[in-house]
Amino acid sequence: MSSARKLTFIPGPIEFSDAVLSAMSTPSQAHTSPEFVPVFQQVLKDLRKVFKSTDSKSQAFVLNGSGTLGWDIAGANLLNANESALVLSTGFFSDSFADALKVYTDDVDIIEADSFGASIDLKKVESALSNKKYNLITITQTDTSSGVLTDVKSISSLVKKISPDTLIVVDGVCATACEPLEFDLWGIDYALTASQKAIGVPSGLSISFVSSRALDKALSKEKPTAYFASLKRWLPIMKAYESGSGAYFATPAVQLIHALNVSLKELLAVNDSIDARIEAHKVASDSFKDKIESIGLNLVPQSRDVAAHGLSVIWFPEGVDGGKLLGGIREKGFQLATGIYKDYKTKYFRVGHMGVTAVGERKAELDQCFEAIKDTLIELGYKK
Amino acid sequence: MSSARKLTFIPGPIEFSDAVLSAMSTPSQAHTSPEFVPVFQQVLKDLRKVFKSTDSKSQAFVLNGSGTLGWDIAGANLLNANESALVLSTGFFSDSFADALKVYTDDVDIIEADSFGASIDLKKVESALSNKKYNLITITQTDTSSGVLTDVKSISSLVKKISPDTLIVVDGVCATACEPLEFDLWGIDYALTASQKAIGVPSGLSISFVSSRALDKALSKEKPTAYFASLKRWLPIMKAYESGSGAYFATPAVQLIHALNVSLKELLAVNDSIDARIEAHKVASDSFKDKIESIGLNLVPQSRDVAAHGLSVIWFPEGVDGGKLLGGIREKGFQLATGIYKDYKTKYFRVGHMGVTAVGERKAELDQCFEAIKDTLIELGYKK
Repeated sequence: MSSARKLTFIPGPIEFSDAVLSAMSTPSQAHTSPEFVPVFQQVLKDLRKVFKSTDSKSQAFVLNGSGTLGWDIAGANLLNANESALVLSTGFFSDSFADALKVYTDDVDIIEADSFGASIDLKKVESALSNKKYNLITITQTDTSSGVLTDVKSISSLVKKISPDTLIVVDGVCATACEPLEFDLWGIDYALTASQKAIGVPSGLSISFVSSRALDKALSKEKPTAYFASLKRWLPIMKAYESGSGAYFATPAVQLIHALNVSLKELLAVNDSIDARIEAHKVASDSFKDKIESIGLNLVPQSRDVAAHGLSVIWFPEGVDGGKLLGGIREKGFQLATGIYKDYKTKYFRVGHMGVTAVGERKAELDQCFEAIKDTLIELGYKK
Repeated sequence: MSSARKLTFIPGPIEFSDAVLSAMSTPSQAHTSPEFVPVFQQVLKDLRKVFKSTDSKSQAFVLNGSGTLGWDIAGANLLNANESALVLSTGFFSDSFADALKVYTDDVDIIEADSFGASIDLKKVESALSNKKYNLITITQTDTSSGVLTDVKSISSLVKKISPDTLIVVDGVCATACEPLEFDLWGIDYALTASQKAIGVPSGLSISFVSSRALDKALSKEKPTAYFASLKRWLPIMKAYESGSGAYFATPAVQLIHALNVSLKELLAVNDSIDARIEAHKVASDSFKDKIESIGLNLVPQSRDVAAHGLSVIWFPEGVDGGKLLGGIREKGFQLATGIYKDYKTKYFRVGHMGVTAVGERKAELDQCFEAIKDTLIELGYKK
């Protein structure tokens, strides 16, 4: 493979389809024009299918921003200053979510996985919820730093049983559209994601989905603690666009929303459902992880059950210089990601496999990426 | 002109150059890759030329967001809860800035223009600054709802004389790159803008420039009141990119930043300075306003001295149905904007003239837009 352009195999931003990139160049349209309003309307309707919600009182929100902004939206809208949050942490991004919530309340408790690569011990969650009333719990479905997948369904079920008033917040930045999520069925209150991962659109959008219960909380909040991130200010805007009329609070990212509209059509191509797309990510992930393990490499997640499907997080093998490995793979045309978690950051690397190069028309590129990893290891003298 | 595509002559988003739109389709790059870092570096360097700052301790910030997010950045970083702000209001957007600041402090005073279309009475500013110590003053350079241009230079000079400790905040959303601003020379502390107006890039970026004094305030803030909008968190990231290395807090909008890099080259094409571009906007604006007045229409700004150069805000002439006028102009291929300020909103319309269709290679389109306005008025029976 030519090294002219490096293919982006990091866990977001991912490679984008030609149709999505083409939509990024949509010539200018006024944000309340008859050309743009139906596009945003379709996006908001299609997001209901991605999050699996048919409750007309829940609402999708698409804001200029990023995944990180979604944390502020949770903190600013769903927590009062005297309220408490329980954060389940499987890595850097869950910890950062806790940092973000600490802007809005001092009462943030964290349950950490027992070790890096481990999942959350449900007994600890059960115990925490039994001993203290939390207003909100956060679950990072895939922590992009560790590749650990957290069982949102089981934890939500536990919350419903022990502490049904606790709002359930899911960080799906690296999970939405590549891991199952049943917003209504599991009783999720706020799910946040971003455009540049399995959603398949360049960075720039904060995408979230809010239950009627969470909206009630946001609307009743005593004192607003954000302006741009205020769900109360955005709710009438999103309702207007979804019903087919324009409205203004801040200027939406017209071109990114066009790109999102195109991508959502790709995501929902089979039966107008996200299910096939999610299943395809599981197949691609299983196959890639099988190959990685077949050459003797070890995954950071401690078992396949707790390994996310949008990326593979892999220990550098002993005796191999991590920098040289990633550099050699890059020379072959594939940009991978380094580690990002505390003391481990130089000890592992990350390969994103979401979207068009994992489950789309360019999925052969993921196979080529594996070959580049294997060949570079051999060049560096690695033997299984 | 064919009505196939409506040209966007609203005061943002504007029409974009082909080169900018093409950059929006840049294939994926990792946000810390050797391909992207120099692009972001160049953008941050070029923004110093747009804002006219050579102080190495000041800093440009480019975040995923919009102009509105800039208000949160000001409130969250430059105001403590017990501190006071003075807002100078010439319309809807200045008032909204006050609303945003009220999230962060209860002590927000507003000096309104005496009437819609009037400028701020400097004597009132002088009196307010003399009678109360304000921590921060906001000046909306162009209020996009009224088209009133506020004299940032004179007001800054007044602040420096009477209340030198007051931080000077300029909302340049509809002014940056089409009105003069001397960040260092006038002693501005925080200037905010957005991508989709005279900057010439699709919506999605919050762009701002911060003085060393404002950064000191942001860094010393007792308790953070935002996470994504925190200058303290973004400062090391922007410094890293500007010095040529990647860093991570939240994923930047890679494609929008590529587009911004292209647009800044266009903005700085003459002598690597923004001056010629700003002067060209004055020429285009004067010419357009002359034509508008030549057919008997009246501008909302009460004199040319207080009329902004990035848009023209025009009263509907008596006896002409505003909806029919804008509809007829749209039929001819030009999307204009309605009014947005309180009771006046149905009484006037707005024409944006920024960027490529005002001062770039497509500037003949602004003349065509004027012809469409004139012709539609005639069709509706209007006589001067």
